[in-house]
Amino acid sequence: MSTYLNETDAGRRIMQRCDELGSITEPGAGVTRLYLSPQHRMAAETIAGWMRDAGMDARIDEAGNVVGRYHSDSGGGPYLLTGSHMDSVVHAGCYDGPLGVLTSLDCVAVLHGRGRRLPFGVEVVAFADEEGTRFRTTLAGSRAITGQFGEDLFNAKDGDGLSVREAMMEFGLDPDAVGKASHRPDELIGYVELHIEQGPVLQAADLPIGVVTAISGQTRAVIKLKGAANHAGTVPMGMRKDPLLAAAEIALAVERVASAYPDTVGTVGFIKAEPGSINVIPGEVSLTVDLRSQADDNRHSAFRELDIAARAIAALRGVGIDINTILDLKSCPCAPGFVSQMTASVESTGVRPLHLPSGAGHDGMAMSAMTDIGMIFVRCKDGISHSPEESVTAADVATGASALLHFIENFQGRP
Amino acid sequence: MSTYLNETDAGRRIMQRCDELGSITEPGAGVTRLYLSPQHRMAAETIAGWMRDAGMDARIDEAGNVVGRYHSDSGGGPYLLTGSHMDSVVHAGCYDGPLGVLTSLDCVAVLHGRGRRLPFGVEVVAFADEEGTRFRTTLAGSRAITGQFGEDLFNAKDGDGLSVREAMMEFGLDPDAVGKASHRPDELIGYVELHIEQGPVLQAADLPIGVVTAISGQTRAVIKLKGAANHAGTVPMGMRKDPLLAAAEIALAVERVASAYPDTVGTVGFIKAEPGSINVIPGEVSLTVDLRSQADDNRHSAFRELDIAARAIAALRGVGIDINTILDLKSCPCAPGFVSQMTASVESTGVRPLHLPSGAGHDGMAMSAMTDIGMIFVRCKDGISHSPEESVTAADVATGASALLHFIENFQGRP
Repeated sequence: MSTYLNETDAGRRIMQRCDELGSITEPGAGVTRLYLSPQHRMAAETIAGWMRDAGMDARIDEAGNVVGRYHSDSGGGPYLLTGSHMDSVVHAGCYDGPLGVLTSLDCVAVLHGRGRRLPFGVEVVAFADEEGTRFRTTLAGSRAITGQFGEDLFNAKDGDGLSVREAMMEFGLDPDAVGKASHRPDELIGYVELHIEQGPVLQAADLPIGVVTAISGQTRAVIKLKGAANHAGTVPMGMRKDPLLAAAEIALAVERVASAYPDTVGTVGFIKAEPGSINVIPGEVSLTVDLRSQADDNRHSAFRELDIAARAIAALRGVGIDINTILDLKSCPCAPGFVSQMTASVESTGVRPLHLPSGAGHDGMAMSAMTDIGMIFVRCKDGISHSPEESVTAADVATGASALLHFIENFQGRP
Repeated sequence: MSTYLNETDAGRRIMQRCDELGSITEPGAGVTRLYLSPQHRMAAETIAGWMRDAGMDARIDEAGNVVGRYHSDSGGGPYLLTGSHMDSVVHAGCYDGPLGVLTSLDCVAVLHGRGRRLPFGVEVVAFADEEGTRFRTTLAGSRAITGQFGEDLFNAKDGDGLSVREAMMEFGLDPDAVGKASHRPDELIGYVELHIEQGPVLQAADLPIGVVTAISGQTRAVIKLKGAANHAGTVPMGMRKDPLLAAAEIALAVERVASAYPDTVGTVGFIKAEPGSINVIPGEVSLTVDLRSQADDNRHSAFRELDIAARAIAALRGVGIDINTILDLKSCPCAPGFVSQMTASVESTGVRPLHLPSGAGHDGMAMSAMTDIGMIFVRCKDGISHSPEESVTAADVATGASALLHFIENFQGRP
């Protein structure tokens, strides 16, 4: 049933290129490839070369993305975009991003090898800055392609105080020309991305690939609790106003509330007690909340419940509370037509099509402002990503590549 | 009933001297007076001068303590020791320590003013290093007086790498002569200390002073929890091994267990999550436990319960746990005879005698190795100490001074 002649070969071929791209890195453990760095330049040129080998017109665009066009049977567009990002976090693995770029590239190479053109073009894209590691901004590459590259991005600074605008010039790009990277909506018929899951769901379900239903929305908040710092030995238990105990109850409330909603997760990733001495009852405690769900209604309800619970916990302990929401990002659903077509493509590889949300953000969030999106996940070992330990198997990659090629070859968009 | 001619005058007089001593400080907020510093030298000389004015033979001893002897009616000892410490934490108030030194000194001044000698001598002591702020060692002064000033103390270093031995020489002391500071057991008939409560119990009971029953024993432990760090968005709630949630349950277990035992307190003062990012499920969490009780049996039982609870919490969450006990310090009971005599002395001032443990450590812990001890607490505002906000009233101080003088005048030790 595979649309590849030899699946295993495809998996090995794609992983070998991930390794090759992974060797383009700053020194240190794993892969560190940041936006507008020399490593970015070298990776982009390598990818552009591979694209040309696969019969594409390739160029590095005005934001540093690599875009390669495999024209339609009529010699042009519109184009189905497919790809992922080529940048990384610090000490990353070599699959988060590149796997999607190189699988898309391999699909086109297979079409090219067969001399096959489709009724629409295929544009493979390697986005320049999904992680936002260097400048603390995200999705710069896909925001350029969708015309959303604004002043906030230009002015963002790296750890050395260099702005994106300055770094673009150093890289050899003209910041004032960034608009030329943006696509016209009528040039696009959709965006489809293959990515490692970065979670343990597929592994637990014993499935190599899965169909993404949505990129989850997020609420992030910082909670500050103010009690009364005092000597750990001298204040009877009943006379304390201990913000750390309130924080403990709130952390457990985050777990309880998130668990009560489907496809919703809640995390306390940071906690700090002041003054933080073994023999002092804390006077102040800060903690963070990260709440995600593919259903915005569920996320908003869960956050409201949590807000009520946290205020009640603080009030019962006589502790002051301040809840500051610092992010409220809508869910980004995959287009129903993309989900159903991807479901058929997964089935075409003989795999039961599991539907799951993406709790992590992806370039699809920016792309969805301009076109329909779809995603396919490939199982990764123990859900580990953002680490040199990141691991996939050639067999899983091959299955993902087969599904993606099936999706592309059979795509019924709105050309 | 007061043994003072005018209580209020005594309170004002003692507080004025606390203020005067408080002006001998390093620059900055509140009082900072560290062991073997120039401020220590100046404070010691000031106190010695006041002792001589009150009819005492006074000297700065070989460890930097000030000792002033008011001889018995037969012209010598044995001596009832009374006093407190003259050193401070950084940015302290001016009562924690000095209030006990200067109240003891005032009691002797009153006896001296009346030309009254007792069948035993009274030795007022200003201990040089109770807080241990500079060298991270505690009770250096009282350990010198009880012959426990060992190599660990000599070799302790301050933040600049200067050892106690070196600092003693800089101060003008001969480290090899420190043995001369130690008292013979037969010179002593007891040690009694007045100190601010450093807790809120007396304020809550609306009482100016209280009788201390024991200096609580302490267990201190560091708990490390090891789970699996992962992306906050991609791991379903039921598939997490979150050490922060285990830590939250353990912190609440500390509260629950400590609350179940009388006169027992438990505190989590420090907590840290690694990596500590808003969007990452923590992989490791450390937290501290400080458990105190006047009854060692209760403390040990409570710690055992907590240990079992913490291991069960970790096991249920699939989180690794390491519990490292870093301190196990026995309770130091006040002598029953001292408690009953102090009870009578408090009653003599017309105050209901409330018995309470001291959750904070004091020089009595070292003194108890050589002689019986007793303590009296004076109410302080909101239980605040170790802060420039530390506050007492002249009326409360006067009541404390009256009780202490009553105790001294009526003391039935083992002379």
